[in-house]
Amino acid sequence: MNNLYFDWAAASPFDDDILNTALDLSKKAFANPSSVHKAGLYAKEILQEYRERTAACLGVPGNTIYYTSGGTESSHLILVSLLLRPAKGSIVVSSIEHPAVKEQASMLTHCGWDVLTVPSDSNGIITSEAVLSKIRDDTALVCVMAVNNETGAIQPVNEIAQAINSVYPGKKKPKFHVDAVQAAGKIPFSFCDPLIDSLCISAHKIGGPRGIGILCMKARQEPFLRGGGQENGIRSGTENLFGAIALCLALEKYSVKTELDERFTVQKNMTSSFIRELRNIPSCTIIPASRQDPLYCDASGYDTRFSPWIIQAAFEGIPSEVLVRSLSEKGLYISTGSACSSRKLSRPVLEAMNVSREHIASAVRFSFGYTTKESEVSILLDNLKDVVKIFS
Amino acid sequence: MNNLYFDWAAASPFDDDILNTALDLSKKAFANPSSVHKAGLYAKEILQEYRERTAACLGVPGNTIYYTSGGTESSHLILVSLLLRPAKGSIVVSSIEHPAVKEQASMLTHCGWDVLTVPSDSNGIITSEAVLSKIRDDTALVCVMAVNNETGAIQPVNEIAQAINSVYPGKKKPKFHVDAVQAAGKIPFSFCDPLIDSLCISAHKIGGPRGIGILCMKARQEPFLRGGGQENGIRSGTENLFGAIALCLALEKYSVKTELDERFTVQKNMTSSFIRELRNIPSCTIIPASRQDPLYCDASGYDTRFSPWIIQAAFEGIPSEVLVRSLSEKGLYISTGSACSSRKLSRPVLEAMNVSREHIASAVRFSFGYTTKESEVSILLDNLKDVVKIFS
Repeated sequence: MNNLYFDWAAASPFDDDILNTALDLSKKAFANPSSVHKAGLYAKEILQEYRERTAACLGVPGNTIYYTSGGTESSHLILVSLLLRPAKGSIVVSSIEHPAVKEQASMLTHCGWDVLTVPSDSNGIITSEAVLSKIRDDTALVCVMAVNNETGAIQPVNEIAQAINSVYPGKKKPKFHVDAVQAAGKIPFSFCDPLIDSLCISAHKIGGPRGIGILCMKARQEPFLRGGGQENGIRSGTENLFGAIALCLALEKYSVKTELDERFTVQKNMTSSFIRELRNIPSCTIIPASRQDPLYCDASGYDTRFSPWIIQAAFEGIPSEVLVRSLSEKGLYISTGSACSSRKLSRPVLEAMNVSREHIASAVRFSFGYTTKESEVSILLDNLKDVVKIFS
Repeated sequence: MNNLYFDWAAASPFDDDILNTALDLSKKAFANPSSVHKAGLYAKEILQEYRERTAACLGVPGNTIYYTSGGTESSHLILVSLLLRPAKGSIVVSSIEHPAVKEQASMLTHCGWDVLTVPSDSNGIITSEAVLSKIRDDTALVCVMAVNNETGAIQPVNEIAQAINSVYPGKKKPKFHVDAVQAAGKIPFSFCDPLIDSLCISAHKIGGPRGIGILCMKARQEPFLRGGGQENGIRSGTENLFGAIALCLALEKYSVKTELDERFTVQKNMTSSFIRELRNIPSCTIIPASRQDPLYCDASGYDTRFSPWIIQAAFEGIPSEVLVRSLSEKGLYISTGSACSSRKLSRPVLEAMNVSREHIASAVRFSFGYTTKESEVSILLDNLKDVVKIFS
């Protein structure tokens, strides 16, 4: 039977070399980095070395990198720190955010904060105009993700940052937080944009382990969550060296510009042809349908508005779960929506895009990674056609 | 040179077998446990299997175990969930709590909550009377740790739980949260006490990796921190299977009752003799000085009020950091205070016990673990005597 994985946006297969190296080194640096004896100082030194190397991968200063348990916690730190502000205000959140941002923002309404939701256009893209139209004078924070985890839509976050800054210069500027979990190591992305105040990434989307992530915060924002004061007071709890080392090694392997650009180009071609093949299946609708609009295609014929690693598509008449399970039976692993929403019935991102109820009910996600081969995608297509035939 | 580690309360050396096994299995179960394909279901199954096995170690139902990134996050979940209550009230916190509880509780004052601090007696023990005297009608949560991380003082948490319940029966009972990080796998401890509403433990104190812990919550308390809804909605973020497996294996290896009791007995004898030897050093004062009071000693001559794994002592005239560094130069690793406070000058736990300023300035912590040998403790004592001689 096949054993082919197309759910990289949920979690990537482990990169064995990375995990083994990280475990070996973290065993040597087992002590608590806060301990002042030599074993503790060694652990601290290793942590700092990998922090600097991680920062170098992202093109940011080392002292802006704070280790957390993942993207969710990183976003929580930013959102929950609002509770320290003397005056309550509003949070502007895109309608296509990951629940780590969306659900947490909505919890802040219990503490007197307003949440203002930015509508997405029908392509699942948040425009800077839409963001600006929601910002109020009391807006303390704006959250727009870099790449949507369900559709692959790349958000114009640098443009949004610029727009916010031009309208609200100086101290009145709301902080801008970007969930870059689906961007890091996957698409060319400028982590060093000084107008983005904070960013988060997770290791388990790029070959690293689950349970480690980064909050990259340009200027210190005092945290509401406190404890032993690790990570310069920003994130308390004994530092996870195994995770920190592995995350760094994953970034060094997968986010180096030249190699990333090369893989990105290869993947764009593979995805262009995959989408063409999908369109040949009569019951299939790509979501959004406009994906691969020639207006937005580059010289290679790829629609640059979307990450080539993620494709969302609906197969009329086949409920998403049925398609996922049918392919799973054949050893082909795709996903309904995001992993987080896979056991829920609602699909907030697609709803925000005004996708029809029929399409929402039959929408699935294909997500690829560095080791995905064209031959594997061929097998996926063959099996997909077989399953679709049975249900049509 | 020596390479002897006596700082187990900060972090234990890795148990290689446990970490290797956990990594191998988590590589196989690399998928996102929320994904509904076979790879995701396999990851979910493994996670559930280890959750049940972990619960069995602690003698609690599997559905009370929630994985977190460690003790700090576990305590945060409980404390921050108070923000969901419609009416603000008070939190009763012992004066010797870990900063994860103490600092976080104090942050809640920004949201209208009162923090009421329970004084410790001069032995660093929180009595049930002291707790009861602080509880008000509006007290929603009481936090007392199981074993203090600096002195080893075992807190009468079951007695405190009973006392709270007898005075505030039924719905009015404040929730009772116990930080059991220094208890799990170290001393006989009843995790299943139904009057303790929540407990937390960390893997890296018992041979597991940093970055994984447990919140054991008897009855569901809705969380304020939200996202993808993993861990039954209690703790969002992709589940860390490597950590969860390793934590379970550590508990199975170190918390099984018969073996724990055996190691506990051996350690009690080792610590009794260590304290006797320390007392022979003229400048040394055990903290608290009453430790090994015959009144509280068992048949073996061990003071049952303290965990045998942790000893705090002051060496007159030698600043803590100087002693730690001097021993570190000789390859012997002890600690000032807790790792969390090691770079700070204040020692809140010792201050709460009314330890003199002189003793606080020269207090260090020795903490032992499963692999600590008598011969190693002998070397420690010899070197300690040498260093003390130089400074006297």
